[in-house]
Amino acid sequence: MTFTFWFEFASTYSYPAAMRLEHMAAERGIEVRWQPFLLGPIFKAQGWDDSPFNLYPAKGRYMWRDIERLCERDGIPFRHPSQFPRNGLLAARIVAMHTGEAWVPAFVRGVFRANFEHDEDIGDPQVIAGCLAELKLDASAVLEEGQRPEAKTALREATGRAVELGIFGAPFFMAGDEPFWGYDRMEQALAWYASQRSVRIAEGA
Amino acid sequence: MTFTFWFEFASTYSYPAAMRLEHMAAERGIEVRWQPFLLGPIFKAQGWDDSPFNLYPAKGRYMWRDIERLCERDGIPFRHPSQFPRNGLLAARIVAMHTGEAWVPAFVRGVFRANFEHDEDIGDPQVIAGCLAELKLDASAVLEEGQRPEAKTALREATGRAVELGIFGAPFFMAGDEPFWGYDRMEQALAWYASQRSVRIAEGA
Repeated sequence: MTFTFWFEFASTYSYPAAMRLEHMAAERGIEVRWQPFLLGPIFKAQGWDDSPFNLYPAKGRYMWRDIERLCERDGIPFRHPSQFPRNGLLAARIVAMHTGEAWVPAFVRGVFRANFEHDEDIGDPQVIAGCLAELKLDASAVLEEGQRPEAKTALREATGRAVELGIFGAPFFMAGDEPFWGYDRMEQALAWYASQRSVRIAEGA
Repeated sequence: MTFTFWFEFASTYSYPAAMRLEHMAAERGIEVRWQPFLLGPIFKAQGWDDSPFNLYPAKGRYMWRDIERLCERDGIPFRHPSQFPRNGLLAARIVAMHTGEAWVPAFVRGVFRANFEHDEDIGDPQVIAGCLAELKLDASAVLEEGQRPEAKTALREATGRAVELGIFGAPFFMAGDEPFWGYDRMEQALAWYASQRSVRIAEGA
């Protein structure tokens, strides 16, 4: 049984989830699979050519107020980015190539902070190089890998799996087969996973 | 400063909110204005001719699982209704005519339970008559009032105010001017209202 965090770098609600998940999961002894995917193709299949927060202005206005309020409550720095949504393609391809490696959670947080704390363009390879360099990684080698066909394939396949799982927004948590959508379901998802794991241990499974 | 609960009888997430709000608000000494409105015209203005949970099947499948899980967690009986969304027009017009009256919260809960616990058609005046009779009200008189032009106007005006307030879904809570969308924001909305009220009392406002 696996706990998977499905996120999209452009997604506002994925940001506080990425900032808090590792700590909250560790408190419960849960190992997390950090899995990037793209919302763009999923939205396009629904007939949307932009974020629903841009297409539906009342919903968008509310979201910006809500995310600001949540980040303030949870002690997470937040600045309304001057561009939304930003292009997380390169960062997502890099993570898709390196799923499971120890530096991934810190890199993901760095990219999210660039976008939503520092208002930097995460579509710019220089910004991503900065996030990699902060972790003492070989930025140019990792960037180069992220542009290889294998990276594009890995991310495309991940997005396909997301669609198969019925994922339609981000963040999304799969606690085994149990789906949880949204930052406000993160605790519930972790608690669900922990309780299912206890059942399996009790049953000797 | 007013705390207003904006709800739509067809809305799944409005159901647990309606079931728990009165008790949770009373614990904090908060008086609630129960305000029905219609999502239909709001969705129509966005180009949707049905519930987004029907238009976007992956989102709909998730919602049914999520609401079932939430109701189980919160001890609220829930049955997947055989028809969705149901027509809450008559019930909403009745409440719109009687906002602020003491029997309204119990009537609202009765209608929601008819829809989401007993799988009854709340578009049928007989079902609504049953909900009124349970409260020892004169069902035929109240039903007749609900079909008057004033009732239609009251509900139409309420829906217009909802649009002006930027309301795009249900349930929606207005804690003074502060907007909160969704059942999962109900506690936060009540806490916000209570804290703002404390500030105003401290300032002698």
